[in-house]
Amino acid sequence: MSGTALPDTASRRIMGIVYGVGTMGRVRARLMVEKGVEIVGAVAQSPQKVGRDLGEVADLGFETGVIVDDDAERVLAKQPADIAAVALASYLDTMFEHFERCLRHRVNVVTIEEESFYPWMTAPARATELDRIAKEHGVTITGSGQQDIYWMNIVSLLMGAAHRIDCVRGRTTWNADDYGPAVAAEVHLGDTSEHFYRLVADKERPSFVVRNTLDALVADVGLTTENVLLSIDPVILDEDLWCKTLDTMIPAGRVVGVVERGTVETHEGPKLTFEMTGRIYSEGEVDTNEWLITGEPAELRLFNDCVPTPFTTCAQVVNRIPDVINAEPGFRTVDQLPKLRYRPYPLAHYVV
Amino acid sequence: MSGTALPDTASRRIMGIVYGVGTMGRVRARLMVEKGVEIVGAVAQSPQKVGRDLGEVADLGFETGVIVDDDAERVLAKQPADIAAVALASYLDTMFEHFERCLRHRVNVVTIEEESFYPWMTAPARATELDRIAKEHGVTITGSGQQDIYWMNIVSLLMGAAHRIDCVRGRTTWNADDYGPAVAAEVHLGDTSEHFYRLVADKERPSFVVRNTLDALVADVGLTTENVLLSIDPVILDEDLWCKTLDTMIPAGRVVGVVERGTVETHEGPKLTFEMTGRIYSEGEVDTNEWLITGEPAELRLFNDCVPTPFTTCAQVVNRIPDVINAEPGFRTVDQLPKLRYRPYPLAHYVV
Repeated sequence: MSGTALPDTASRRIMGIVYGVGTMGRVRARLMVEKGVEIVGAVAQSPQKVGRDLGEVADLGFETGVIVDDDAERVLAKQPADIAAVALASYLDTMFEHFERCLRHRVNVVTIEEESFYPWMTAPARATELDRIAKEHGVTITGSGQQDIYWMNIVSLLMGAAHRIDCVRGRTTWNADDYGPAVAAEVHLGDTSEHFYRLVADKERPSFVVRNTLDALVADVGLTTENVLLSIDPVILDEDLWCKTLDTMIPAGRVVGVVERGTVETHEGPKLTFEMTGRIYSEGEVDTNEWLITGEPAELRLFNDCVPTPFTTCAQVVNRIPDVINAEPGFRTVDQLPKLRYRPYPLAHYVV
Repeated sequence: MSGTALPDTASRRIMGIVYGVGTMGRVRARLMVEKGVEIVGAVAQSPQKVGRDLGEVADLGFETGVIVDDDAERVLAKQPADIAAVALASYLDTMFEHFERCLRHRVNVVTIEEESFYPWMTAPARATELDRIAKEHGVTITGSGQQDIYWMNIVSLLMGAAHRIDCVRGRTTWNADDYGPAVAAEVHLGDTSEHFYRLVADKERPSFVVRNTLDALVADVGLTTENVLLSIDPVILDEDLWCKTLDTMIPAGRVVGVVERGTVETHEGPKLTFEMTGRIYSEGEVDTNEWLITGEPAELRLFNDCVPTPFTTCAQVVNRIPDVINAEPGFRTVDQLPKLRYRPYPLAHYVV
């Protein structure tokens, strides 16, 4: 518990690296600065960003003296850092080399890469390797993001009000226009339905978010997975829809997003289902998050309306930074971390 | 995390005492039995219950061999127990002797007594004394109930998705007809408005629940209270309303419940407001729980609809039992305990 005096944080600051300066990375950079993190490096791949001051690229309103660099190795070697906030791409396979690089430089990692939220079921070899490297170098890697509170911790918490659970059913929506072109590509915008299903069949495309979120929930509650069912379907409208991110009109009959559904059957009885729709919105639509738990009592309900998902994704990652720095070294998923908390003080105040 | 095999709980059971066999106590007794707790004692004051088998009094559907006794000292002395689930009355002053008695017999206490949810601001001397006695005897006392998840932990968790918080506003309702005559008396059913306000002024009646819930929230988030404002007003309708618990009609113009409002201003900036209405419902009304956090992002919203408050009050207390047994000795409020979790296995499985 805080005392009544302002804590002395002048003597200690958190040194941070913004690793990825896309739509999410830019917001996160500002939040980190406002929570007292000293940004000591910035990594990006796009030629439009490289060589410019992070303050300019991230619209901070001031010069930081940190020049965006496309050579992550150089950034990491230049000076020590406590944390790298990493947001580049999805899937642990793709991101492995980036995470490994940070960890080998003894820099903790917090990331919104979705598989890292709970990688032990879908990418166990990669996760084990990163866990080993992290422990060897005395640092921690954790996946956070919107999953952390809204799709996992708030659900496992509400489950604690039940005596017997038969089913947990979640339904959430997010606007695929909010996250830049990388995410827009993930939801196959503008594709035909035929091509979408052929791609899905060819690639054996793993679940983008749903599977790993359910796996984290199962672990957090102490349940045991017996069976997993996953499906993915396109969202197709019978009217044209404007996509801001790609600056293009998506014709009626083409893909404007995806619905992913996952079900986990557990040894202990509860069946957990999560349906996530990521799509371009029509006028007036907002992000929602809705959960229903059935059993005894008959129903427990939770609804979050007008969720500002892009912002809360970033705020949760930034609020997690002290937990990641404080954690035992290794690949630490959020079920192993303390309750995520609001941080009124500079983040260094919460580092023990 | 649980393994895939059913855990061996046959070798170890939790021994429990049902201390108070009122409306809440009877439900709780059943939930404890269904979660593998061996009931070794039952305490009640009412002559209609004393001398009868707990199974009969609590509608368990079978005889337990445990006879409800009005002599708590005798029940506690008869044989050792791990936990007493205590639900008798409100306010720590009233309940002190009951808690003390359990602790001195080395029995952990979990209670729905509302002040015990966070007693350090409203009853610090009593809490300190119980903390000392608990430590001396190597046991723990904790207050839980509906506050635990719905009015405190789910709020502090949602606050973790914010970057800056200006205000937290909660509004909750519960049906005063659901908890038996003791709670019905607390909300002054049938009183006149004049008498209500005179009583409130005379007794300097402290907040029934709101104040202690806000104090717990402030502690859990690591904020610092600077100022507290409390108010209580009667709910008065212009039509007659039937009260089931008291088996009587409450005339139009008389008190059918209370609205309590509390505001805590904190050193760190966030202002927390909680409005709780406990009243007899009109046809079709249901319990709700609603929270709004403003700041950056502009709004975070949470809504629980059709909350089965009487049941979830009991379920949370029962699910807390392993945390209380596992805790360091002392008066441990829930901000100091692990995340409350669903318990698919017998409770003994979660005792370390």
